[in-house]
Amino acid sequence: MTTARRDTYTPETLLSVAVQVFNERGYDGTSMEHLSKAAGISKSSIYHHVSGKEELLRRAVSRALDGLFAILDEEHALAGRPVERLEHVVRRMVEVLITELPYVTLLLRVRGNTATERWALERRRDFDHQVAELLKAAAADGDVRGDVEVRLATRLVFGMINSIVEWYRPDARGVSGREVADAVVRLVFTGLRQA
Amino acid sequence: MTTARRDTYTPETLLSVAVQVFNERGYDGTSMEHLSKAAGISKSSIYHHVSGKEELLRRAVSRALDGLFAILDEEHALAGRPVERLEHVVRRMVEVLITELPYVTLLLRVRGNTATERWALERRRDFDHQVAELLKAAAADGDVRGDVEVRLATRLVFGMINSIVEWYRPDARGVSGREVADAVVRLVFTGLRQA
Repeated sequence: MTTARRDTYTPETLLSVAVQVFNERGYDGTSMEHLSKAAGISKSSIYHHVSGKEELLRRAVSRALDGLFAILDEEHALAGRPVERLEHVVRRMVEVLITELPYVTLLLRVRGNTATERWALERRRDFDHQVAELLKAAAADGDVRGDVEVRLATRLVFGMINSIVEWYRPDARGVSGREVADAVVRLVFTGLRQA
Repeated sequence: MTTARRDTYTPETLLSVAVQVFNERGYDGTSMEHLSKAAGISKSSIYHHVSGKEELLRRAVSRALDGLFAILDEEHALAGRPVERLEHVVRRMVEVLITELPYVTLLLRVRGNTATERWALERRRDFDHQVAELLKAAAADGDVRGDVEVRLATRLVFGMINSIVEWYRPDARGVSGREVADAVVRLVFTGLRQA
């Protein structure tokens, strides 16, 4: 568990500790007491930075959501054939997931018990919808197979990508984020079978 | 929540209620009191059937594991080119996941805090390993692409399949288990891109 001296604390380091605790104990199972212990600062020091744990949750999932939505504004997500734009988005989703691993992990575990969680779920749905629209456009162009329904294909592709949070660890010897992104793009677009 | 009259209770119906409660509250968060309330029978009646909640967990995850391991003994999983055997296994994994949805959901959420959970994780790893071996044999034949490492490909394919428990509901209007299995086989083996 990360600890830090009080005088070195910033909203950023507090957020990073909070996300770790939320992911370990679950958001519902985390009290301000747990956060205070993990951060090694008093509860009143935490309240100096934020109004409470829900604000920490909002900041944490915002960081994940902002990272994901920013992908949709990238040049390669905006210009070109939909299938190429989709490929760019899939690759970048994997990269953002790995760069912001604890934040995206938290986002994917949000269940909807509080206003902030419902807001996060709503924004996730919005993101998923925009990716599904890209897939639909690629199918309309005939670049993507027509025999798998768009909504189902979107769910399965997101399922593959999101499952990475279950096993990927940045310090693991072995695969880099780049290798995982390459593998996902290959499998999603051209599948396992040798052409 | 399912309730049933005491005199109609069988180990089978008790198991089905227990799995539902484990999936809703988490195994760690479930007490015999919760099980007794959900089943509508006394704790002593539950102890008449089983030694405790760990036995219920063991029976529940066994049902999922037995369903999965049985796939590996099916004719189409044993005979033919490895890539065809693999395709059969992937299709049947989706079908078993959907047929045994609450049991597989529970299996996938096991974390390893008790001996039963560690045993379940061990059997899951054994199953994953056998599927990975099939993928390796298919790659050796040149039927499966060589540019995605076997372990990584296995993880991503399992990620796609296992993610189905997050959204598939048997009563949902819309996709049938068969359609989901077809979609997974198409995406996993030949990908999204129109050939």
